[in-house]
Formats: sequence, C-alpha cells, structure tokens
Amino acid sequence: MTNVTVVAAGNGGAAIAAWLSLKGCKVKIYDKFESQLAEIKKTGGILLRGHYLSGFAPITKATTNIEEALEDSELIMVVTPAFAHAEIARLCAPYLIHDQIVVLNPGRTGGAIEFNKTVKEINPEASFTVAEAQSLIFACRITGPAEVTIYEVKRKMAVAAMPASETQRVVSKLNPYFPQFTAAKNVLETSLANIGAIFHPAPTILNIARIEAKKTFEYYREGISPCVAEVLEELDKERLELAKRIGINIPDAKSWLQDVYGIPIAPSESLYEAIQKQKAYRGILAPKDPFARYITEDVPMSLVPLSELSKAFDVKTPVMDSIICIANALHKCDYRSIGRNLKTLGLEGKTKEQIIDLVS
Amino acid sequence: MTNVTVVAAGNGGAAIAAWLSLKGCKVKIYDKFESQLAEIKKTGGILLRGHYLSGFAPITKATTNIEEALEDSELIMVVTPAFAHAEIARLCAPYLIHDQIVVLNPGRTGGAIEFNKTVKEINPEASFTVAEAQSLIFACRITGPAEVTIYEVKRKMAVAAMPASETQRVVSKLNPYFPQFTAAKNVLETSLANIGAIFHPAPTILNIARIEAKKTFEYYREGISPCVAEVLEELDKERLELAKRIGINIPDAKSWLQDVYGIPIAPSESLYEAIQKQKAYRGILAPKDPFARYITEDVPMSLVPLSELSKAFDVKTPVMDSIICIANALHKCDYRSIGRNLKTLGLEGKTKEQIIDLVS
Repeated sequence: MTNVTVVAAGNGGAAIAAWLSLKGCKVKIYDKFESQLAEIKKTGGILLRGHYLSGFAPITKATTNIEEALEDSELIMVVTPAFAHAEIARLCAPYLIHDQIVVLNPGRTGGAIEFNKTVKEINPEASFTVAEAQSLIFACRITGPAEVTIYEVKRKMAVAAMPASETQRVVSKLNPYFPQFTAAKNVLETSLANIGAIFHPAPTILNIARIEAKKTFEYYREGISPCVAEVLEELDKERLELAKRIGINIPDAKSWLQDVYGIPIAPSESLYEAIQKQKAYRGILAPKDPFARYITEDVPMSLVPLSELSKAFDVKTPVMDSIICIANALHKCDYRSIGRNLKTLGLEGKTKEQIIDLVS
Repeated sequence: MTNVTVVAAGNGGAAIAAWLSLKGCKVKIYDKFESQLAEIKKTGGILLRGHYLSGFAPITKATTNIEEALEDSELIMVVTPAFAHAEIARLCAPYLIHDQIVVLNPGRTGGAIEFNKTVKEINPEASFTVAEAQSLIFACRITGPAEVTIYEVKRKMAVAAMPASETQRVVSKLNPYFPQFTAAKNVLETSLANIGAIFHPAPTILNIARIEAKKTFEYYREGISPCVAEVLEELDKERLELAKRIGINIPDAKSWLQDVYGIPIAPSESLYEAIQKQKAYRGILAPKDPFARYITEDVPMSLVPLSELSKAFDVKTPVMDSIICIANALHKCDYRSIGRNLKTLGLEGKTKEQIIDLVS
C-alpha cells in the first residue's frame, strides 16, 4: 500500500485520487481552496464513475495545509495547470526530505526541470525525485459533488525523471496502479513530445476574433484550416529539429496522431488531412475565451521553453517566436518573461553538454 | 489638354481614365490583357457613372503595347496592385525619356523608391519623375462592359515625388483635374502613412480559418476583436517609432480614422472602440479567400518594406516581423524575399542619412 498525495482537487486530480484509492493506495488530497475540498471532506471520499473502474474511493485526508498533505507520503501526484508547478514546488520544498517521488501530470515542457530547480533553490538539502508524464492519463470530468467520471484511459504514457537515472524507480512505483507508464529517455524527450505546443496556441491565435466573439465551431476540424495546418507543420519542423540536435527521438505531429488514435496516415497526406480523419476530434469545440489555457498555459509553459531550449541548442525557431510575440501582443503581456525561459529553468549560460548531463 | 496614359484597365484605372477624359485630357489606356480592353475598343470609350461626374468618356487608344501607350504621354497614372509596380517599371523604362511624370495610385510602401530604382537599372539615361499617392482617390467599381461607377471621391490625397524636390511639379500637373492632391514631405511620408499595413494583414491572419471556411463576417467590426486591435496598436507603435526616427509626422491609426471619417475619437478610447464607431466600416465583409490581397499584396508591399526600412533606421519591429513570418508559414512562401526589401528598394548598405538624401 503506497501513501499518495494528490495535488490538487480539479478534474484530473480527483480522478487520479479516486483511481489510486480504489487500487489500494492510502490517498490524501491537497488543494489551495477549501471550497474544492468541502464535499470530499463531508463524504470522506470521491465517487468514481466510468466503465474502467468505479466505486466509492475513500480519501484519508483532504486539506489546504501542504505540510499535513505531504506527511508520510511516498508519491506526490501533481495534477494542475503547468503555470502552478513553480508555486507548488515552493510550497512542497521544505517537506521533500524522504526521497519522495513527485510526478507532474503532465509537465508540459520543462516542468520537471523547473520543479527540481525551484525546490533546490529553497531547500538545497531536499531529498526527492521529480518526474514528468507526457500527458494526463485520463480523459475525465468532475460530474457532481465529490464525484468524478473517467471517460478514457490512455493506453501508453511516457514518463521521465530528473535525472533520467531515477526514471526506472518512478516507473516501478507507478506500474502497480498504472501499467501504462513507460520510461522515456529523459525529461527532454517528454518535454519535446508535448504536442500541445503545436496543437494549442497557433490555432487558437489564428481564430482569436472568432473565439472572442464566442462563435461555436469545432476546434480541430474547423479551426485548423489548410492554411492553419501549414503553420502547425512549420512549428513541428522546428520542434523536430531541436529534438535532432538534442539527440532524442520524438514522433512528428502526424505520427503522433497515428500512434495515439490508431488511424493510418499515409506519408503523402498533409497534417490537415490527418487531423480531418480523426474521429476523436469530432465535436470538440473551440474555447470561447480569448484568454483560454491554450494560450495562457501553452504559450509560457510549452512554446516558450521550446523556443528557449532551441536557443541553447542553436536551433532557429522563427515560427514559434512569432506565435509567442503575437500572443504577447494579443494579451498585452510578456509570456517569455513569465514563462519557462532559460533563467527560470536554471539553464542560463549552460552549454548543450551541461544541459544533457543535467537531465541524464 | 494633358496627354495621359492610364495603366491598367481595372476598377481604379477605368475610373481614373474616364474621369481625366471627361475633365479634358487626351487619354490612352494600357492593359496587359487584350480581354480587359476589348469593350473599350469596341465603344471607343468608357461610360462613367456616379453623382460626382458622369458621361461617356472617349479613350484615344486602348492597347497592350506599352510603347504605343506611352508615346507623347506627359502623365502616366499607374493604377494596379503594388506587386505589379516593378514589372510596369521594367516595361516603361525604355520609353521614359521626356521627363514624364509617373504617379502610382497608390504606391503602398516604397512604391516610388522601387519604381525609380527599377527604371534606372534598365535605362540609366531615363528622364522621368515617379510619385506615389497615399491611396486610391476613388471608391469605384467596374459596373458593366466599358462602364465604371465612382461611389466616393476622397477629399484630400497626399502625394510625394522621388525626389521630393519634384513634388510641387507633380501636384501642379494633377491639380487641374484633382484639386485634392497635396504635397507630402517626401515618399517616406506617403509610404509610412500607408494604413493598410496596419489594417490589412494582421486581422486577415487572425481570422484566417474563418476566411478559409468562407464564413461571412464583417471585416472591421467583427474581424477586429478587442484582442486583434491590441495587435494593431502594437504594429502601429512600431510604425510611429520608425516615422519618429526618420523625422516625419504621420497620424497614428486612431488619428487617421478621425481625419478620414470625421468622427471624433477621445484619447482615452482604444483603437477597438474607434473602429467600432466607424459608420464607413459597416457592412464591409471580410475576404473569402485566404490568399486575399490583404495578405498577398499588403505583406510584401507594405509590411515588408516597413520592417526593412526599420532595420535601416535601427528600429525594432518584432510584431511586424512576426506577422510576416506567420504569413510566410500560412502561404508557404517567403514574402520578405519577394517583397520590397532593402535590396529590391536599392537601399542595401545605405546609411539613414543617405536614404533621407535620396528621397529629399
């Protein structure tokens, strides 16, 4: 029986907490907001629905106190937007002293690097391993008070620890409950495989007036027109060039679609055609908020770190940089300075070799 | 009686030809395509409609032969998309030997500089003056075979010659027929005052999927959402910074709207609010072609030369450069290399002082 803490009690956090509890773990749940925890406290657990696993999942403790939440915990599952990771690292830093494993679900790009650096700055004696999952393992939603429904469970999920020498230990810890987790080469692989960097900011920006007018349209099938898909292909080329320079293997966007959704895509087919074929994308509506997470999270936490890593590896990323620049103008902010840049990742001034050493 | 040649026989060319003919000029018209001229040849002229001026306007000659078209001509009114200007300069170069005046209606950005450089490369002995108008003087459309309707005549139109010492001669030549033409300081002023650089490419790009899906929406009032207007404000700041560095006075986008459409705009109002107030923009629909001239003409002929001039004057233009980069990705082409760059403008390696001297 593993002692687990789940941070925080949103859709994904509630689902992971309930799943692990029903799989036999002793689960505590932390959230910043008391209101998120009230119903769980009242009922003493979470009702899990869905055809993969269901039942009432007891939760040992639901608390807004991080010290209480982490006490005796071996595994900390962080399930929050990526822009919360640094703050969570700061909160957890004093209590990571027993070689705990922290898994970011997901890390987006540079999540584990940022978490590791943030904790060590605050607590140089900290004893822990942080890992990042490629994506969130479930498609799920909170469907009632202290109730969550899991619609889909992904069949395969890459994870990597920081440093990579710890990845096997993390996989072994997760596999009894999630056999889908497999080891990636290192956190640069999970970070670069973040397909959200390609699929989220650019289509949102290239449909921004329509989104701001709260028009209803399908995000993938209508929002990614042939011209928009050309931009995504250019973004993807930049990402693949960085991967090549680092020496890691990641699938391009079309191969990723084929791997994840199982529909064969011919080499002659364009990314536009490949996206149009995906049944999984039918009916997925575009956000109705121009400040949607597809920009506010994926620009600073996905595109910015890809662009910044590219600087360190001498790869030119004019299209990524342009999307970041337009996002800054649209939102009147500076996503590069508030996002995961070389400085906040602790990589400023490091050579390519030093960066690869750091994650190995 | 002035001998005029109009190049070419599209909406604007037909209107200017008919207007000048009815005002007493002897008018020839040139077009690359015989089909554009067939009806004019048949009837011997153009029927001009509209409440400003109307009647049957005789055309002395309609020809696809540029030598014939330019023979004995004193004034050559070029009324084509800006991407045709270099080709027209090459065609006209051998025949510009009698101090003819060429007016680009309009030049967009760098039109006169490019025309001047292109002619002189081919015919170093050429004797002519090229000028650029700020915009097209009419709102007009071809409304039938050899028939054109003028809906609006602009009340004021800046024009500048290359070099500026010739501007007064150009204004004097035009004023008997168009009293609206007034002298700008130089062609950098008419080039930087090109508001299309701000109002055309960015909103088209930030609505591209919707345009590609052939959705009907109002270009200005729906396509320029509050977030899109933020991008336009940033583009405008870059343009104004360049003007300041050059030492010319141009109105910002809000002042331009107030000057042209006469509706007062308070300093506290945003560009979004200023655009929403314009009655003139009601009902103007967005293009339904993702390869619309708002990108294919205004990126290479407006934004690219603004960005390139900014390089020469040490002004940073990250937002312009990003819009150009995204346009390149959307259209799979290189608008900077096919557009008006420092090389095609003949300004490569020139200092700021040399550029200002050249146009003065």
